[in-house]
Amino acid sequence: MFYSIHNKEIREISLEQLDFHDICVGYLTLDELKSCYQDLGLSEVAVKDCMTDFTHFRTSMDVYDEFSFGMINIVDILNLSTRRNRIGFFIKKNLFVVVKIIDKEDSIRQMFLDAIGRFRQNATMEKVIYGVLERLLSSGNRGLVMTERQIIAMEREVVNGKVDPELNTEIFDLRNRLSTLKNYYEQLIDIGESLQENENDLFEEEDLRYFKIFTDKSERLSNNTQLLCDNLIHLREAMDATLNYNLNNTMKLFTMVTIIFQPLTLIVGWYGMNFKYMPELGWKFGYLYVIVLSIVVVGVILYWFKKRKF
Amino acid sequence: MFYSIHNKEIREISLEQLDFHDICVGYLTLDELKSCYQDLGLSEVAVKDCMTDFTHFRTSMDVYDEFSFGMINIVDILNLSTRRNRIGFFIKKNLFVVVKIIDKEDSIRQMFLDAIGRFRQNATMEKVIYGVLERLLSSGNRGLVMTERQIIAMEREVVNGKVDPELNTEIFDLRNRLSTLKNYYEQLIDIGESLQENENDLFEEEDLRYFKIFTDKSERLSNNTQLLCDNLIHLREAMDATLNYNLNNTMKLFTMVTIIFQPLTLIVGWYGMNFKYMPELGWKFGYLYVIVLSIVVVGVILYWFKKRKF
Amino acid sequence: MFYSIHNKEIREISLEQLDFHDICVGYLTLDELKSCYQDLGLSEVAVKDCMTDFTHFRTSMDVYDEFSFGMINIVDILNLSTRRNRIGFFIKKNLFVVVKIIDKEDSIRQMFLDAIGRFRQNATMEKVIYGVLERLLSSGNRGLVMTERQIIAMEREVVNGKVDPELNTEIFDLRNRLSTLKNYYEQLIDIGESLQENENDLFEEEDLRYFKIFTDKSERLSNNTQLLCDNLIHLREAMDATLNYNLNNTMKLFTMVTIIFQPLTLIVGWYGMNFKYMPELGWKFGYLYVIVLSIVVVGVILYWFKKRKF
Amino acid sequence: MFYSIHNKEIREISLEQLDFHDICVGYLTLDELKSCYQDLGLSEVAVKDCMTDFTHFRTSMDVYDEFSFGMINIVDILNLSTRRNRIGFFIKKNLFVVVKIIDKEDSIRQMFLDAIGRFRQNATMEKVIYGVLERLLSSGNRGLVMTERQIIAMEREVVNGKVDPELNTEIFDLRNRLSTLKNYYEQLIDIGESLQENENDLFEEEDLRYFKIFTDKSERLSNNTQLLCDNLIHLREAMDATLNYNLNNTMKLFTMVTIIFQPLTLIVGWYGMNFKYMPELGWKFGYLYVIVLSIVVVGVILYWFKKRKF
Amino acid sequence: MFYSIHNKEIREISLEQLDFHDICVGYLTLDELKSCYQDLGLSEVAVKDCMTDFTHFRTSMDVYDEFSFGMINIVDILNLSTRRNRIGFFIKKNLFVVVKIIDKEDSIRQMFLDAIGRFRQNATMEKVIYGVLERLLSSGNRGLVMTERQIIAMEREVVNGKVDPELNTEIFDLRNRLSTLKNYYEQLIDIGESLQENENDLFEEEDLRYFKIFTDKSERLSNNTQLLCDNLIHLREAMDATLNYNLNNTMKLFTMVTIIFQPLTLIVGWYGMNFKYMPELGWKFGYLYVIVLSIVVVGVILYWFKKRKF
Ligand SMILES: [Mg+2]
Ligand SMILES: [Mg+2]
Ligand SMILES: [Mg+2]
Ligand SMILES: [Mg+2]
Ligand SMILES: [Mg+2]
Ligand SMILES: [Mg+2]
Ligand SMILES: [Mg+2]
Ligand SMILES: [Mg+2]
Ligand SMILES: [Mg+2]
Ligand SMILES: [Mg+2]
Ligand SMILES: [Mg+2]
Ligand SMILES: [Mg+2]
Ligand SMILES: [Mg+2]
Ligand SMILES: [Mg+2]
Ligand SMILES: [Mg+2]
Ligand SMILES: [Mg+2]
Ligand SMILES: [Mg+2]
Ligand SMILES: [Mg+2]
Ligand SMILES: [Mg+2]
Ligand SMILES: [Mg+2]
Ligand SMILES: [Mg+2]
Ligand SMILES: [Mg+2]
Ligand SMILES: [Mg+2]
Ligand SMILES: [Mg+2]
Ligand SMILES: [Mg+2]
Ligand SMILES: [Mg+2]
Ligand SMILES: [Mg+2]
Ligand SMILES: [Mg+2]
Ligand SMILES: [Mg+2]
Ligand SMILES: [Mg+2]
Ligand SMILES: [Mg+2]
Repeated sequence: MFYSIHNKEIREISLEQLDFHDICVGYLTLDELKSCYQDLGLSEVAVKDCMTDFTHFRTSMDVYDEFSFGMINIVDILNLSTRRNRIGFFIKKNLFVVVKIIDKEDSIRQMFLDAIGRFRQNATMEKVIYGVLERLLSSGNRGLVMTERQIIAMEREVVNGKVDPELNTEIFDLRNRLSTLKNYYEQLIDIGESLQENENDLFEEEDLRYFKIFTDKSERLSNNTQLLCDNLIHLREAMDATLNYNLNNTMKLFTMVTIIFQPLTLIVGWYGMNFKYMPELGWKFGYLYVIVLSIVVVGVILYWFKKRKF
Repeated sequence: MFYSIHNKEIREISLEQLDFHDICVGYLTLDELKSCYQDLGLSEVAVKDCMTDFTHFRTSMDVYDEFSFGMINIVDILNLSTRRNRIGFFIKKNLFVVVKIIDKEDSIRQMFLDAIGRFRQNATMEKVIYGVLERLLSSGNRGLVMTERQIIAMEREVVNGKVDPELNTEIFDLRNRLSTLKNYYEQLIDIGESLQENENDLFEEEDLRYFKIFTDKSERLSNNTQLLCDNLIHLREAMDATLNYNLNNTMKLFTMVTIIFQPLTLIVGWYGMNFKYMPELGWKFGYLYVIVLSIVVVGVILYWFKKRKF
Repeated sequence: MFYSIHNKEIREISLEQLDFHDICVGYLTLDELKSCYQDLGLSEVAVKDCMTDFTHFRTSMDVYDEFSFGMINIVDILNLSTRRNRIGFFIKKNLFVVVKIIDKEDSIRQMFLDAIGRFRQNATMEKVIYGVLERLLSSGNRGLVMTERQIIAMEREVVNGKVDPELNTEIFDLRNRLSTLKNYYEQLIDIGESLQENENDLFEEEDLRYFKIFTDKSERLSNNTQLLCDNLIHLREAMDATLNYNLNNTMKLFTMVTIIFQPLTLIVGWYGMNFKYMPELGWKFGYLYVIVLSIVVVGVILYWFKKRKF
Repeated sequence: MFYSIHNKEIREISLEQLDFHDICVGYLTLDELKSCYQDLGLSEVAVKDCMTDFTHFRTSMDVYDEFSFGMINIVDILNLSTRRNRIGFFIKKNLFVVVKIIDKEDSIRQMFLDAIGRFRQNATMEKVIYGVLERLLSSGNRGLVMTERQIIAMEREVVNGKVDPELNTEIFDLRNRLSTLKNYYEQLIDIGESLQENENDLFEEEDLRYFKIFTDKSERLSNNTQLLCDNLIHLREAMDATLNYNLNNTMKLFTMVTIIFQPLTLIVGWYGMNFKYMPELGWKFGYLYVIVLSIVVVGVILYWFKKRKF
Repeated sequence: MFYSIHNKEIREISLEQLDFHDICVGYLTLDELKSCYQDLGLSEVAVKDCMTDFTHFRTSMDVYDEFSFGMINIVDILNLSTRRNRIGFFIKKNLFVVVKIIDKEDSIRQMFLDAIGRFRQNATMEKVIYGVLERLLSSGNRGLVMTERQIIAMEREVVNGKVDPELNTEIFDLRNRLSTLKNYYEQLIDIGESLQENENDLFEEEDLRYFKIFTDKSERLSNNTQLLCDNLIHLREAMDATLNYNLNNTMKLFTMVTIIFQPLTLIVGWYGMNFKYMPELGWKFGYLYVIVLSIVVVGVILYWFKKRKF
């Protein structure tokens, strides 16, 4: 499906009608791409890149002599766990082609149409590309605010001394999410900088400003993601300190109990011995004596604890 | 509300009286902005940016062709926990408009009036902007000195071996506060650098020096904030080491008590057995023997402890 | 073994037939190199570098006046534990010589032949070099995806609370593998940048783009390797937190058991004493009394636990 | 107090005698500054900066159009705990004024006089400034060597397995000292770089070399301070590992003692039961049997320990 | 002792014979330097720098107008614990003087003679300096390979679960050694870069390449040292995890033993009480009952352990 923007109007055109004096954009499936890449003058290597399966780690752009080819694994900040959509894109002089590689719910198509509609008035290649790319950042701030609220809620729990095992899982999930996100924005920064460099002269100098705005927005989101990462590190440290503190207290309590009961247990064991000649056992006040002895021992131990501020 | 600075005098003027040969400044509410942004030639997108709710993470400046638009979430170093004030600002040739977005206690308005009054004598756009921005840094050093004192007080406690649970909470709060602050100054640096770059030529070359002074001040505050962060890390490490050391001591004490009492308990249990034929029970000096045995056992254990420097 | 590329054909030629108007490439063993390096105008120092044994850490390129000499310890991402292949290479004007230093399974030779075949059509020195170097990166993305899957599987185990000792070993292995890999790509980046700098003017300006593509690919792989390293750090932290949490729980359980049984043991020891005059022993309901006492003690302790949310 | 350097001689002059064709230097108290800053053409803002109390964090230089103003909180590496001296300084064309803000023992005055005397022969502004600044670094290397010796002594203790609580305090103090020092040198680097930049053209290009030497010396001291910081981190890690190792050993010892004594205690308790019909109690060799049983139990446990290499 | 290189021959010459049209090199003791530094036109300050005792931290080069002066504390990677040799060096136009400050075994002298002999053929100042400096790196790769082997051997031990206290000491030593080494190479990089900058124009532009090669070699060694440092960090983490895991296991074992024996000990204590009216004691199958009770208790506990996967 190709469109040309002519006199502020968007017309759907066929492959044969492509006229590079107007601004032409296309939205293709992989099959459509395979059938027409030679007519469009795109290299086979790049097309193959689109179709291989091990591109999971590739969000980047390659700059060739005649065209640029990029690939983006779209990260949805509001729903990070689902499988990622993936698009490829080709940029030639006055042609911008988006290739749908993985697209559940056909959401990329809508994004594409919105973007070309938005700048219809005084469309340039750079504005259309900016329009598409900027859509990738649109839910960024909202997602970060929501993540921050989640972290603050976890904070409140830890500060109140509660450490449950789900907390560990949650922190772990959040860290992975944030580091996925950080990496995503870093890669978008790379793409934005690459577009700004304009090495193969596809763009007009005066319109590069749009790519700079995109790069700056990505950088801001990346920095703010980093900020949340730092908060998470503080949270984990607080949790560790709480666990350490609790362990210390448990062991102190335990040690106190042991130190109080061991001597008493020894005493009662002592007078449980069966020796024939144990004078205390026959004393009239022997029982009283052992009661007093126990109280004194406990008293001395408690006093010693107090003095040592145990 | 607009003001123009003419012949070293500040006059309040209406929207219609704006004359861009003088230096004009404005302080608007969101509603006022909505009603007059078209007359001022400001873009709708930026105005919408001002009004959305998810701008919590945005302290930054966008540079457009005809004007620059920035937004600042003001962090009050002396009172970090309250909700933040927020301003937007627009800069055009000879026009500087501050938009009040969130402003409890109307403190921003006062800040704005002070700043334009201060440079009345030989006012330039750059000086007025500098005047407003510099107000954001004014309590920085005082806040940092006070925070440092707080950290030193906490140090003294830890070094004296006291580790109470509030300490953990306090360190956690301080770290979050300092990292909020650091981030704030970093973002002000970005704004300052962006103003210095002067990409859309709104400012005179020779007056960019003022933005450099602002950037340098922010950078110094940012570095000093980092310094306090480092101190806090040292503090946490010292606290961890203290907790570890205490745990070690608790466990040593506990182990010693156990090692001393277990054999004695075994001995007295032993002679508490009810076998018919246990010669020791019938010995004349059986009781004496068990007393001596106990003393010897304790002595040997204590000697062993001493030798191992337990 | 030398080849020249002439009129899009690759011909095997002998040392004497070398004609530097064509593009000449060679694939030599160490012995062949020794016998012909003087004819090729290569320096003795570099040749000796090839033959020393302590080059384990050297993956780099030296730029001399007349030629460049590099050495690469090839890391196979899919099989990191085997001994590494090693190649040297010399670059002169229109001559590219690969020296096989260590090569199990003769895999380097095949790589070399593939690379010169691939760009036969419009061969330049730069393309051939790019072809060889790019082969070193070819299995990178696949290896990273597989490693990521392994890490995710380990995650699932830890999040389910299982921490077995093999996990520690596995994390350790993975970290070493990833840091080997990261270092490898960093060194390839250095070689790529060195080729781009073109200090001794061996290459054409317009063809340096190929070295930039190589450098960018290496950098992307390096960044993605770093990403996996970060995930691994998160994993270790989660494991640590799990271990800490488990220890805390173990100690709590243990302390509870001790606090419940110590007083009971004291009580039964108490009435195991053999004093002649212990009134309780003769009471009609003495046994009932001690049963009730035990139940009360346990009840009080359990209540205290509950109140303290132990 | 002002001095002018004329014909290689230093003459004390009064404010009125200042002649900016010679090199003039001044050493003023705050009061003297207040009374003459207008005659010298210094700005009121900078003078006020000198007098405020919350300048604790300010070691830096501001570059104004006509002059530069700096402030230094002097850190004495050999005596870090005492309160810091503080100086301000103003630099105009051919005028260098040092302002004493805090100066116990009048040591800054001497430093100032030494510095101007040293370059009397062929004095330039740059040399005099360099002379004063360089004095701030003079005891740096000595202080670092002494600190290193202290760290080595602490190392020896930890490696011998001794971990006393003072160690924790000492490490904490050292870290704070080194980070104060590092920050101090970083700030001097900033001042040095600022002087080198020479934005307001107060200095001759050819004499900027002196400021570069100052910057390099500061950077070297900063790097070496960082080196000691790293050593300290290693030391703390070693201490942590020692504490962990000791705890592990304590717990092992404790567990062994418990595992050996618990079964024995159970056995002797068992035959302390008062059942009427317990055949063993009446056996002729019952006592022998329980002795043998105890030995066997201990033997089995010890064997099990040995096999598990506990 | 001075040498001049003339017509590819090295001649020993006296101070008076120095002719700066040839390349002159010198190897002096401190005393010789003191007696001739004025004839050579070297500054007194630099000479004094050579002789002070607190230069332990100084490996660097100062660039003066007429000459450069450097000082190197030589680190021997194969033998880091011995006291370090130290040299100073002066570079003037066509004069290179090495000053022996500390030199056990006279090894520096040999190094110096080798270096000037090596480039005798077409000697330039730059080559001779390169020759001397490059000697400092010559055993680098060998040392790193040997250190790597040592680390791998330690790895194997930890992975097999053995953690002995010497390990801690060894890791500590290795970290200090590697950080000493890293710092050494960083300082050599600084010297190399300083020589490359050639600020006082002592060298020919075209020969600066030699200093670049030296800098690159140093940088590579520094990076590889860093790589080993990272491995060491991984090792320490693995050791920590092993210690934690062991502690967890010890505490679990201990808790199990306690939970099994405490109830049994209570039971046997219970029936050791001396109440007159305890029906169980008189039962015919009382003893059998207590045996069965004990078995049941142990069984229940073991079942509970199994269910909880303790
Ligand atoms: Mg990055
Ligand atoms: Mg990047
Ligand atoms: Mg960055
Ligand atoms: Mg940035
Ligand atoms: Mg930024
Ligand atoms: Mg930053
Ligand atoms: Mg920044
Ligand atoms: Mg940055
Ligand atoms: Mg900076
Ligand atoms: Mg920075
Ligand atoms: Mg700075
Ligand atoms: Mg690197
Ligand atoms: Mg690198
Ligand atoms: Mg890098
Ligand atoms: Mg490098
Ligand atoms: Mg680099
Ligand atoms: Mg990069
Ligand atoms: Mg990158
Ligand atoms: Mg980078
Ligand atoms: Mg810094
Ligand atoms: Mg700095
Ligand atoms: Mg630095
Ligand atoms: Mg900096
Ligand atoms: Mg540097
Ligand atoms: Mg730097
Ligand atoms: Mg340096
Ligand atoms: Mg460095
Ligand atoms: Mg450096
Ligand atoms: Mg560096
Ligand atoms: Mg580098
Ligand atoms: Mg760097």
